[in-house]
Amino acid sequence: MIIRPHPKPWRLFFVLQGSIIGKIYLKIICFAAFAALIGAIDGAVIDIPHLSITAMGVFGVALSLFLGFRNNAAYERWWEARKLWGKILADVRALALELHAHLEGAEERRRILACALALIDEHRGHLRGAPGDVNIERWLNDQDERAIRTSGNPAAAALQLAAERLRQSYEKGAIDAYGRVAIANRLSCLAQSQAGNERIASTPLPFVYSLLVRRTTYLYCALLPFALADDAGWFAPLLEAVVAYVFFGLQAVTNELERPFADVENGLPLNAICRLAENSILEAANEPAKPPLTPSGFVLT
Amino acid sequence: MIIRPHPKPWRLFFVLQGSIIGKIYLKIICFAAFAALIGAIDGAVIDIPHLSITAMGVFGVALSLFLGFRNNAAYERWWEARKLWGKILADVRALALELHAHLEGAEERRRILACALALIDEHRGHLRGAPGDVNIERWLNDQDERAIRTSGNPAAAALQLAAERLRQSYEKGAIDAYGRVAIANRLSCLAQSQAGNERIASTPLPFVYSLLVRRTTYLYCALLPFALADDAGWFAPLLEAVVAYVFFGLQAVTNELERPFADVENGLPLNAICRLAENSILEAANEPAKPPLTPSGFVLT
Amino acid sequence: MIIRPHPKPWRLFFVLQGSIIGKIYLKIICFAAFAALIGAIDGAVIDIPHLSITAMGVFGVALSLFLGFRNNAAYERWWEARKLWGKILADVRALALELHAHLEGAEERRRILACALALIDEHRGHLRGAPGDVNIERWLNDQDERAIRTSGNPAAAALQLAAERLRQSYEKGAIDAYGRVAIANRLSCLAQSQAGNERIASTPLPFVYSLLVRRTTYLYCALLPFALADDAGWFAPLLEAVVAYVFFGLQAVTNELERPFADVENGLPLNAICRLAENSILEAANEPAKPPLTPSGFVLT
Amino acid sequence: MIIRPHPKPWRLFFVLQGSIIGKIYLKIICFAAFAALIGAIDGAVIDIPHLSITAMGVFGVALSLFLGFRNNAAYERWWEARKLWGKILADVRALALELHAHLEGAEERRRILACALALIDEHRGHLRGAPGDVNIERWLNDQDERAIRTSGNPAAAALQLAAERLRQSYEKGAIDAYGRVAIANRLSCLAQSQAGNERIASTPLPFVYSLLVRRTTYLYCALLPFALADDAGWFAPLLEAVVAYVFFGLQAVTNELERPFADVENGLPLNAICRLAENSILEAANEPAKPPLTPSGFVLT
Amino acid sequence: MIIRPHPKPWRLFFVLQGSIIGKIYLKIICFAAFAALIGAIDGAVIDIPHLSITAMGVFGVALSLFLGFRNNAAYERWWEARKLWGKILADVRALALELHAHLEGAEERRRILACALALIDEHRGHLRGAPGDVNIERWLNDQDERAIRTSGNPAAAALQLAAERLRQSYEKGAIDAYGRVAIANRLSCLAQSQAGNERIASTPLPFVYSLLVRRTTYLYCALLPFALADDAGWFAPLLEAVVAYVFFGLQAVTNELERPFADVENGLPLNAICRLAENSILEAANEPAKPPLTPSGFVLT
Repeated sequence: MIIRPHPKPWRLFFVLQGSIIGKIYLKIICFAAFAALIGAIDGAVIDIPHLSITAMGVFGVALSLFLGFRNNAAYERWWEARKLWGKILADVRALALELHAHLEGAEERRRILACALALIDEHRGHLRGAPGDVNIERWLNDQDERAIRTSGNPAAAALQLAAERLRQSYEKGAIDAYGRVAIANRLSCLAQSQAGNERIASTPLPFVYSLLVRRTTYLYCALLPFALADDAGWFAPLLEAVVAYVFFGLQAVTNELERPFADVENGLPLNAICRLAENSILEAANEPAKPPLTPSGFVLT
Repeated sequence: MIIRPHPKPWRLFFVLQGSIIGKIYLKIICFAAFAALIGAIDGAVIDIPHLSITAMGVFGVALSLFLGFRNNAAYERWWEARKLWGKILADVRALALELHAHLEGAEERRRILACALALIDEHRGHLRGAPGDVNIERWLNDQDERAIRTSGNPAAAALQLAAERLRQSYEKGAIDAYGRVAIANRLSCLAQSQAGNERIASTPLPFVYSLLVRRTTYLYCALLPFALADDAGWFAPLLEAVVAYVFFGLQAVTNELERPFADVENGLPLNAICRLAENSILEAANEPAKPPLTPSGFVLT
Repeated sequence: MIIRPHPKPWRLFFVLQGSIIGKIYLKIICFAAFAALIGAIDGAVIDIPHLSITAMGVFGVALSLFLGFRNNAAYERWWEARKLWGKILADVRALALELHAHLEGAEERRRILACALALIDEHRGHLRGAPGDVNIERWLNDQDERAIRTSGNPAAAALQLAAERLRQSYEKGAIDAYGRVAIANRLSCLAQSQAGNERIASTPLPFVYSLLVRRTTYLYCALLPFALADDAGWFAPLLEAVVAYVFFGLQAVTNELERPFADVENGLPLNAICRLAENSILEAANEPAKPPLTPSGFVLT
Repeated sequence: MIIRPHPKPWRLFFVLQGSIIGKIYLKIICFAAFAALIGAIDGAVIDIPHLSITAMGVFGVALSLFLGFRNNAAYERWWEARKLWGKILADVRALALELHAHLEGAEERRRILACALALIDEHRGHLRGAPGDVNIERWLNDQDERAIRTSGNPAAAALQLAAERLRQSYEKGAIDAYGRVAIANRLSCLAQSQAGNERIASTPLPFVYSLLVRRTTYLYCALLPFALADDAGWFAPLLEAVVAYVFFGLQAVTNELERPFADVENGLPLNAICRLAENSILEAANEPAKPPLTPSGFVLT
Repeated sequence: MIIRPHPKPWRLFFVLQGSIIGKIYLKIICFAAFAALIGAIDGAVIDIPHLSITAMGVFGVALSLFLGFRNNAAYERWWEARKLWGKILADVRALALELHAHLEGAEERRRILACALALIDEHRGHLRGAPGDVNIERWLNDQDERAIRTSGNPAAAALQLAAERLRQSYEKGAIDAYGRVAIANRLSCLAQSQAGNERIASTPLPFVYSLLVRRTTYLYCALLPFALADDAGWFAPLLEAVVAYVFFGLQAVTNELERPFADVENGLPLNAICRLAENSILEAANEPAKPPLTPSGFVLT
C-alpha cells in the first residue's frame, strides 16, 4: 500500500510510483499513433468514412458504466479484505483480553496465544505465497509445528490445535466451562475471517466480465479515431491518448485491486497488519513488542 | 468458475471459453445485416426517414442504466451465494473446532461430523440437481441415511439428525450443558446459510425486469440503424454489431450470474468448495484428506 | 412470483403475463397519438416552436437517474422482505433443531412448535390481509387460539404464548436453564424478522418521491414531441411510444416491487414459503409433510 | 409520513400535500422569469452571447450525479432511522417475551417493562423535541421519574434504572443468573438502537456537500437561459421552469429526508411506532391496549 | 463538523466557512485565465484548432462517474467512522448498564469504568494526534497509568487492564461467572470498534485512484477551453471557472472526508462524542456530568 501525501499540482504528472502509467503507456502510444495515422490518411490519401461522435458518445457512456461497475466490485473486494484483516486483528486482541479474564496462569495463556500467532503467520503466508518473519518455532514444540505445517490448511490446523489446548486447560481446571465457551467462540470468529479471506483469494471477479469489458475498451479506442477525424483535427491523437489513458488506466487499477493480497504496490499491507497482531500477542504474553513496520519508499508491504 | 490469467491483448479476441459470444453471435449478425440492409435501401431505393442520433443517445443512456441495474443485482446474488458457501465452510470448521473443545471421545465427534458431511453433500446435490462424490454411506448407518434421503429437505434433515445425536451425547455425559448450547448454536448457523442458498436458488430476479430490459434492448437495436443511416455510412453495420455485442453481451452475462448454482462455466465452483469442507471434516476425524479439486481446462466446477 | 424460463426472442413481444404492458398501454397510446398530432399540426397548420433535442437529453438523463434511484430502493425493499422471510424459515428450522437438542418429550416440543406455526400463519395473514390454509385449531386449544386471535398483534401474541409455554416446560423440568435461554433467544430472532416485515409493510417509499418522479415523467413525455418534431419525422410517434414504454414501464415495475407482500404476480410467494416452514414444523413434530406449492400458470403465490 | 394511494393521472398535478412545490415555487417562477427576460432582450435589444447547450449538458449530467449522490445518502439515513425504530419495537417485544420466559411474578416484570416504556417515551421526546402522550407517571414512582428526567440523557437513564431493577430482582431470587444475562443483553440492544438514532439526529450530512450542490444548482439554472435562447425560443421559460422544478425539487426532498425525526409531512411516524411499542408493553403487562394511531388527512405523525 | 442551518439563497454565495472555495480558488482563477487567453489568441493571433464539445462531453461523463465513485467511497469511510464512534458510545453505555446488573459494589464498578474512560481518551488522542481533556490521572493509580501510556497501543492496553480487573473482581467474588462472560464480551465489542477506527485511519483510499482522478481532472480542464472557443464566446472563461469549481470542489471535499478523524472543519466531532461517553461513565459512577460540548462558531470539534 502506498502511503504518501497527495503530490502538489506541479509534481502531479511526474509521480511514477503508484501510477499505472508504467503498465499502459504502450497501449496509449499505439492508439495515439493509430489516430494520427487515420488523420493523416484521411483527405490526403483517401476519404475515410466518418463515424458520428454522438454515436460514440452513447457507446462511451455505456463503457463508462461497465468499467465503473467492475471497478466498484474490485474496490469492494479490496475493502472487504481490509475489513477482514482488521477483524482478525481485533479478534486476536479480544482473544488476549478474554484469555486474561478467563484463563489462569500465564503459561496456559501463552500456549493458546502461540496458536493464534501461528494462525496469523500461516494465513499471511498462504495468501502471499511467501513465508513470514515470525519465529513460530520459538512458540511451538516440534511436533505441533509439524502437524500444522503438514496439514492441508495450516491456518485452520493452528485453530484446531488451539481448541485442543483449550480443552486440555479445561481438563486441568485452569478455565471454567463459561470461559471455555467464550474462548471457543472467539476461535470460531477467527475461523470466519480466515475463510472470508480465502473466499476472496480463491474467487476472482467473473472472467466473463473481464473479457466483455476489455474487448469493449479495445473496440472503443479502435473506432474513436474515425469519429475524431472530422472535428478534432490534429487534437485527435491527443484526445485518443487521453481517452486510452482514462479507460485502460481504470482497467489496470481494477486489475490490481481485484487481488488485494498480492505483494504489489497497491495491495494490502499484510506484513504491517500481521506485525500489529504479533505485537498484541507479544504484549499479552509479557514479551517486548517489535517495532511496527513503516513504509519504505512510501510503500508499506 | 473460470480460473485463468487475463489473456494478452493479441489473444484477447480469440478466447472463446468463458466468453458469451457463443450465445449471442446470431443476434449480432442479424442486427448487423439489418443495419446493412437499411443502409443499402436508403437513398438507393427509397428515402428512409432518419432518427436523430441524439434521441437514440438518451434512449441508450436509459438502457445502459437499466442493464447496469439488473447486472448489479445479478452480481450481488452471485457474490452473496459465494459468501454463504464461504460461511458454510467456516461454520463447518468452527463446528469441528468446537466439537474438539467441548465433546469428549473421537467417536462421539465423528457421529456429529458425519451429519455435517451429509448436510453439505445433500445441499450441494439439491442446488446442482446432481449427486456428489462423498461416500456418505461410509459415515451413516442405513436407517439414518434413509431418513435423510426420504425427507422433504434432506439437508435440513441431516441437521436435525445432528441435533438428535448431540442430545444423545449429552445424555451419555460426553458433553456438558454449555457445550450443547454452543454446538446447537453452530448447527443453527449452518441452517441459516442453507436457507440463504435456498432463497437465492428459488427466487429469481423479478421476471418483469427481464421482460422490460430484453424488450427495450431489442427495440433499441431495431431503431438504431435508422439513426445511423445518416452519419455512419458503411460503418453503420459495424457500429450496430458492436452495440449489439455490448448490450446483448451484458444481458447474457447477467443471465448466467443470476443462477449462481448452475453447473455452467461462470457458476460457482460448488464441487471445489464442498471438497474443502469435506477435507476439513476428514482432518477433524483424523482421516486422510482428499486432494483438492483443480481447474480442468481453466474451469473449476 | 412468476417462475418461467426466459421466452425465446420470437415470443418475447407476445408474453403478456408478468408484463406491465397491461397497466400502461393507455398512456403509451395517448402519448403516441399526441406526438402524431404535434407532427401533423407542425408545418401543415402552424409552425410549432421546436425544443432542442439535446436539452431534452439532459432532462432525460436526469429522469433516468431518478427513476433508477426509486427502482433501486423498491428492489431493495423487495429483496430485504425476501431475506426476512428466508430468515423466518431458517429460524423456524433452527427452533425445531434446538428444541430437539434441549427439550425433552415430543409433546413438550409440539406445544412450542404449535406457537411457531401460529406465528407464521398469523403473520402471513396480517401481511396478505387474507387467512391462510393452516389448520391452526388442530394445534392449539380454544382458549389459546382465542387469546392469539383477539390480540392487537396476533403474531406477536403467538410468540408470547411460546415464551409462556417455554417457562412452563422449565418449571416442569423438561428443559434446563441453558436451553431456556437458547430457545427464548430463538423466539426473539423470530420477533426481529416479524418486526422487519411489518416495518416494510407499513412504511412505503416516501410519497414525495412518487410525486416528483411521476410528475417529471409526464412532463418529459409531454415535451418530447416538440423536440422530436424536427428530426424524427414520422418516427416521432414510435419513438415517443418507446420512451413512454420505458419510463412508465419502469415506474409500474417499481410500484409493484414497492409492496412485496401484496398478492400480485410480481409479489413474494408467501404461501409457498409458509408451506415450507409448515413442513419443517410437521417433520419436527413427526407428522407427514404436505406437498410443496408449485407454480400454477407460472405463478407461485 | 404520508400514507395515501398514488393519485390518478388527472389529479397528479393538483396534489399539494406531500408535494414540495410549496417550498420551491418562488425559485421556479424567478428562474422562469429570468429565462423569459433573457429571451426578450436577446435580439430585440442586444445580442446576448449564447452558450452551447451541449456544454450545459455535461454540466447537467455532473449535477444530476451529485444531486443523486446526496439524495441517496439522505434516503439511506431515513431508512436506517426507520430500521432502528423497527429494531427498538422488536427489542421491546423480545424483552417482554424474555421477561415472560425468565422472570417470575407479574409485578417484577412490570417494574422492568415500565423502564422500557420510559425509554421509548423519553427517546421519542428527545428526538422530536416534544413530550409524548404516555402517562409515564402511572408506571414509575416519583423518585425514579425525577432521576430519569433530571439526567443528562433521560432515555439512557431509563435503561440504567432497568438494569438496577434487574439486579434487585436477581437478589430477590425472581430471576436466575442465566436470565439476568439474557435480559441485560436485551437492554444493551436497546441502548445500541438508541445510540444509533442519536447518531443520525446529531450528525447531518456534511455541510460542505450542501454548499457545493446548492451553489452548483443555482449556477446551472442561472446559465441555462443563455444556452436555451438559441434553440428553445419561447419554450425557454417553460423548460427552465421544469429544470428548476426537478433540481430544486430533488434538493428540497433531500433536505426533508435528511432529518428523519422532524415532525414534518415526510418524517418518520414516531408517534405511531411508539404507540405500537407501548401496546406491546401494555399487553405484556396485562393491561388493555390503546387504539393504534391512524393517519389524519393522510398524514401519520 | 459544521452545524449550521442551510443559508438563505441570498447569502449562499457569501458563506465561506465550511466551503472549499478557500482551497481551490487559485486553480479556478488559473483555468479561467487560461480559457480567456485561448479565446483571445484564437482568431486574433492564430487559428487555434477546436475540439468537439461532444467529445469533451463523453470525457466529462466518464470523469463525473470516477469522481462520483471516489466521493462515494470517501463518504462511506466517513459514515462508517461515525457509526463506529456511535457504537463505542453505545457499548460504553451498555458496559455501564451491565456492570450495574452484574457487578456488586460501586468501587468495583468504578475500577472498570476507569479503564473504559482511559480507552476513550487514549483512542481519541491516537486518532487526533493530540491529548484530550479527561483527567485520567484522577481515575487510575500511577502504575496503571504508566503501563497504559508506555504500551505500543495505549487504548488496547486500557482494555487489557479492564480484563485484568474483571478477573480480580471475579476472584474477590464480586461478580459471578455469567457476568464475567458478559462483561468480557462487551470489552471485546469495544476492541472491535477501536480496531475498526484504526483500520480507517491507517488505510487511505488507494493512492492510485487519487493520481488517476486528479490527473484526469487537470487534463479535462486544460482541454476544455479548446472545445469552448467555438461556441461559448466570452462565456468560455465563466464556464471553465464553473466546471473547475465543480470538479476540483468535489475532489477537495473527498480529500477532507477521506480522513474523518482529522481536526478539520468537516471532520468528525470526536471531542463532543467523547464528552458524551465521558458523561455516561460519570453518571454511572455517580459523579456530576460535565456540560456537553456545543459548536463554537458553528464548528463542533
